Amino acid sequence: MGANISLLVLFMFLALCSAFPGKRRQYTPCKHTVLYFHDVIYNGENAANATSAIVAAPQGANLTKLANQFHFGNIAVFDDPITLDNSFHSKPVGRAQGFYIYDTKNTLTAWLGFTFVLNSTYHQGTIIFAGADPILKKTRDISVTGGTGDFFMHRGIATISTDAYEGEVYFRLRVEINFYECW
Amino acid sequence: MGANISLLVLFMFLALCSAFPGKRRQYTPCKHTVLYFHDVIYNGENAANATSAIVAAPQGANLTKLANQFHFGNIAVFDDPITLDNSFHSKPVGRAQGFYIYDTKNTLTAWLGFTFVLNSTYHQGTIIFAGADPILKKTRDISVTGGTGDFFMHRGIATISTDAYEGEVYFRLRVEINFYECW
Amino acid sequence: MGANISLLVLFMFLALCSAFPGKRRQYTPCKHTVLYFHDVIYNGENAANATSAIVAAPQGANLTKLANQFHFGNIAVFDDPITLDNSFHSKPVGRAQGFYIYDTKNTLTAWLGFTFVLNSTYHQGTIIFAGADPILKKTRDISVTGGTGDFFMHRGIATISTDAYEGEVYFRLRVEINFYECW
Repeated sequence: MGANISLLVLFMFLALCSAFPGKRRQYTPCKHTVLYFHDVIYNGENAANATSAIVAAPQGANLTKLANQFHFGNIAVFDDPITLDNSFHSKPVGRAQGFYIYDTKNTLTAWLGFTFVLNSTYHQGTIIFAGADPILKKTRDISVTGGTGDFFMHRGIATISTDAYEGEVYFRLRVEINFYECW
Repeated sequence: MGANISLLVLFMFLALCSAFPGKRRQYTPCKHTVLYFHDVIYNGENAANATSAIVAAPQGANLTKLANQFHFGNIAVFDDPITLDNSFHSKPVGRAQGFYIYDTKNTLTAWLGFTFVLNSTYHQGTIIFAGADPILKKTRDISVTGGTGDFFMHRGIATISTDAYEGEVYFRLRVEINFYECW
Repeated sequence: MGANISLLVLFMFLALCSAFPGKRRQYTPCKHTVLYFHDVIYNGENAANATSAIVAAPQGANLTKLANQFHFGNIAVFDDPITLDNSFHSKPVGRAQGFYIYDTKNTLTAWLGFTFVLNSTYHQGTIIFAGADPILKKTRDISVTGGTGDFFMHRGIATISTDAYEGEVYFRLRVEINFYECW
């Protein structure tokens, strides 16, 4: 009888152990959040409102240009407000800070490295992102490689979509963040 | 008797528990792959074939230069084809997209940030890399900090070696990726 | 009796299982180290000693400038000596290599991407860092997203503080690294 129950304990234990990789394969996020950030690109006239600018470019540096289109080689730096909903006029809960580099000569693709610096009653801390951004796709997955504060040591996947844009001056990005490693 | 078996179960459990860190110390990859990427640097004449270009440089920007050698301060952006073997003419399975910055004044060293965007029957997804690249060393280890798709949440180490080069126009890099966190 | 002990084993097992997330929440580092790195910025006259330089800037590239202050848009590249204590003259144990980009128009904030390349009897390997650096704050937390060699697959948090500075030519940064994932 005791042996039977011990066996039962053993099976329960093994079932739980094997549950760990199984659980991971289900891809259930331990934390989920949706945030928006607003990129107002400097066009020479909107310095007061602009939140990002091209800071290096082959043509600016008189370097021979590999491609005349798709902004190839432009490096843009941004410090964009983050909001909880999709309104540019909502109270910011933080700033998206970092850079992107246009890196293809035959389509619009960028490489992103940036950080969400969140500072509100809602969230305190930073989230670090990196990855390739094929801008014309409806959704793009990039990596969340780390975090600090409320997001201490977190990892996950961020799904980015262009929620709205106005010419080449305003872009609103929706970022759905699914964390799969929470601490 | 029941107590003895229970103790046995306990010991088996503790053995299994302590096996987790032990397993990690053996550094057994959960996934392994070797890929090649091909960097054709723009030299002003090969725009059709070029896959990378210097997009910012101190001399280009008329900034005072710290060093005249080793390309110090040059920022190169690339969108290179990835192949399964070492032939430039093999069918690409994806693109290596990102940048490197030459960062030393007395030798050839770069800082790498890039992503493999894989899109084939073989692999679907992205792999994110970051790290220091002491180019003249035979092999260089950098970090795989994340991934998406087939490489969802993966982490690992990439060992890079210069497989071939032709002057300053063509570089072929062999990348051996060992994933130690698979999902 | 056997059943009771089996139950005890079960409870012990469950207690241990639930201890894993609990342990993480205590944030006990598995490895801890403090290092200093020394950034000697090139000012046009100190080429022999300089370890970093501005390699791209909107004004350098004749790009219209978004902001005239806070170095907005400047990209600096560095290859700084790392020491175990806060003396610039101590024997270096490695190099801090990477870049920062000034990314705000109304205060001093940078985005950091760099690697510690350690090569001493003390440490062999690399540590990869990324994150936002609000320079004027006393301490800033960034992410350690990976490592190689002695820091194989490590992750953690780095707390950066400006230990000393001299004008705009010398900065000494204290980096307290707490690893929470060791292998």
